[in-house]
Amino acid sequence: MKESRRRFSASEYTQRQRKTREAMQHAELDLLIVYDPANMNWLTGYDGWSFYTHQCVVIGSDDTLFWFGRGIDAVGAQLTTDLSEDNVIPYPDHYVQSPEIHPMEYLADILQQKQLHNKKTGIEKDNYYFSARAAESLYTKLPDASFVDATALVNWQRAVKSPQELEYMRSAGTIITKVYEHIMQVVTPDMQKNELAAEISHAAITGTPEAYGDYTSIVPLMGLREEAATSHMTWDDEKLGTDSGMFLELAAAHARYHCPCSRTLYLGKPTQKYREVEKVINECIDVALDKFKPGNTCGEVATAFFSTLKKHGYEKDNRSGYPIGVSYPPDWGERTMSIRTNDTSVLEPNMTFHFMPALWLEGWGFETTESIVVTESGGECLSHVPREMLVKD
Amino acid sequence: MKESRRRFSASEYTQRQRKTREAMQHAELDLLIVYDPANMNWLTGYDGWSFYTHQCVVIGSDDTLFWFGRGIDAVGAQLTTDLSEDNVIPYPDHYVQSPEIHPMEYLADILQQKQLHNKKTGIEKDNYYFSARAAESLYTKLPDASFVDATALVNWQRAVKSPQELEYMRSAGTIITKVYEHIMQVVTPDMQKNELAAEISHAAITGTPEAYGDYTSIVPLMGLREEAATSHMTWDDEKLGTDSGMFLELAAAHARYHCPCSRTLYLGKPTQKYREVEKVINECIDVALDKFKPGNTCGEVATAFFSTLKKHGYEKDNRSGYPIGVSYPPDWGERTMSIRTNDTSVLEPNMTFHFMPALWLEGWGFETTESIVVTESGGECLSHVPREMLVKD
Repeated sequence: MKESRRRFSASEYTQRQRKTREAMQHAELDLLIVYDPANMNWLTGYDGWSFYTHQCVVIGSDDTLFWFGRGIDAVGAQLTTDLSEDNVIPYPDHYVQSPEIHPMEYLADILQQKQLHNKKTGIEKDNYYFSARAAESLYTKLPDASFVDATALVNWQRAVKSPQELEYMRSAGTIITKVYEHIMQVVTPDMQKNELAAEISHAAITGTPEAYGDYTSIVPLMGLREEAATSHMTWDDEKLGTDSGMFLELAAAHARYHCPCSRTLYLGKPTQKYREVEKVINECIDVALDKFKPGNTCGEVATAFFSTLKKHGYEKDNRSGYPIGVSYPPDWGERTMSIRTNDTSVLEPNMTFHFMPALWLEGWGFETTESIVVTESGGECLSHVPREMLVKD
Repeated sequence: MKESRRRFSASEYTQRQRKTREAMQHAELDLLIVYDPANMNWLTGYDGWSFYTHQCVVIGSDDTLFWFGRGIDAVGAQLTTDLSEDNVIPYPDHYVQSPEIHPMEYLADILQQKQLHNKKTGIEKDNYYFSARAAESLYTKLPDASFVDATALVNWQRAVKSPQELEYMRSAGTIITKVYEHIMQVVTPDMQKNELAAEISHAAITGTPEAYGDYTSIVPLMGLREEAATSHMTWDDEKLGTDSGMFLELAAAHARYHCPCSRTLYLGKPTQKYREVEKVINECIDVALDKFKPGNTCGEVATAFFSTLKKHGYEKDNRSGYPIGVSYPPDWGERTMSIRTNDTSVLEPNMTFHFMPALWLEGWGFETTESIVVTESGGECLSHVPREMLVKD
């Protein structure tokens, strides 16, 4: 590993691998093929925008641990991981995006050579990038293996954050706080949405003198006027204009660790309905943050939130949060727990969540969200953006 | 559709759907489940960063055409497509990232209701986001359907660009030209890589007075010093320093249409080896661009390029280009043809490629690349960045 690329001590990576092997033992797996780029990074440090071609980390219940990917990325694996050269295994370039041959067929040959062809093998069946064809190539080429869905096995190991991980997330929190300060300095009604996005990206990537800004796993999402009624629109050249609300769903990242934070921006004097929803949401957030304590379940947080919301006459039929940490596009969520009333996952100290009580209403919408860490005294915010509508009159 | 979100005329979308149905007929498909976000956009206009949850466009050989996605994205589908309300079909939020139930099971029920459960159905088996579990959910819930791999069927229809598409790509070309001008104005040896990335992103998203900058499907890739020996490293806070080469693999986008363009930046006085490679690559580019004529094959372009490179004593064991156009993360390539010696695809007028003769060498690397459109007089560049090393002494 190139030392300036080191994000965690060698022993922290070893500990993560041990934890994963314990979970594999529990699931009676001999081998696990890890496709999720965030899982690959968490297990080995591997970092690169190479997830558009097939690649994985293979970990065994024995001491098997290797990176498998495209030849032109192998040096990247050497620069960002502690794996020995033997354990960085490239496949030839003519396997890339070929209709005839598939990189997973090449991996199957490697597993055969290593006598790992007949194992109880976990695969992340519902992970981005683990395509149907990747799975079917493995099934065909490894008839003696038995395959088990291990979709979120590694993701679950990531739930409780280490001190170093929390430090990176707090750095991201400091960056997003500065991003919002910058927005309030520069935003005007004459600005186009893309011009605001340019300012946001510049501030987020610049970061702070202590922590550089990394790219975020989702680009800035903007809901201006009627587009605030839906959740994942990105910018075009529409002018912000006056007397209109707009939600900003943003994050900052440092060393691939994220801190999302959404606010609603209002240029002009907010109408009564915006002020009313702001008050309701802030009460809901207070109630919910208080519940982010060890021993409570995700369902209990959700129930506290949804019942407070309902008391004020609002309904929301989608989840209001999910765990966060290290991530790659297309998602900054960890895809394990959800803040839903029926989620019985029990909170532990140093779990981290994006609490996301967004309201997408009829023709408009409102977002105030917080990224938090679970502590004995409730959810502690990772960023410090004023929890109010951002108003520029 | 919200008119300010319209990118193409209704008749251009209809024409694309007709073209796709013809290809389906040729492949004897009754139905096609389209997961690739770029294909979804090309067929209907749908635009949103919602591809981190399962979604698709379903097109039939009859007049079936509907969007299927998460409830909170349905308004987005109404704002960005001409589909009728009936043909925007949302699934409930508790299907999102659930280990128990899968959105494709819900789609199977919809297909059943529409009497489309027993059709010869194309699926994009090796597309990002079409996970192994998505496929297996369909196989299980639709036992009377027969499934066929139709991975690049829609992608192939996108190969030849319309006048409006070319206009968007040329706009992206104008933006990337300005991005490089901006880089040369601001770059200094004291700058950190992330600070340069912030400047690049700001310029790319700002765009020009005529064309806003959209987000690109890959973030700026940077290969500084030893990191130039590999292809997909992103920035950290390392200082650029002096007397060092760095490749920049960048793109600009407008309305989701991309123009990638890479250059090698040298702060200081380039050494002999940089100047030598620059000369070789520029000769190779001249030779190859001349071959991007209708009637030639991708293989003929590759052979011309690789043989010129070899004449000068360099070897490259990876492909040197691919088609481009509309795209979403994680890739700006179209994933059909490749500039490889054995690719027999025949070039047609108005096909567009990223010609990518990058060299990742032992401990360093060099990139000069061009995005081109195929014309009778050879490849016409979509951007106008000086084709030379960017030197700041």
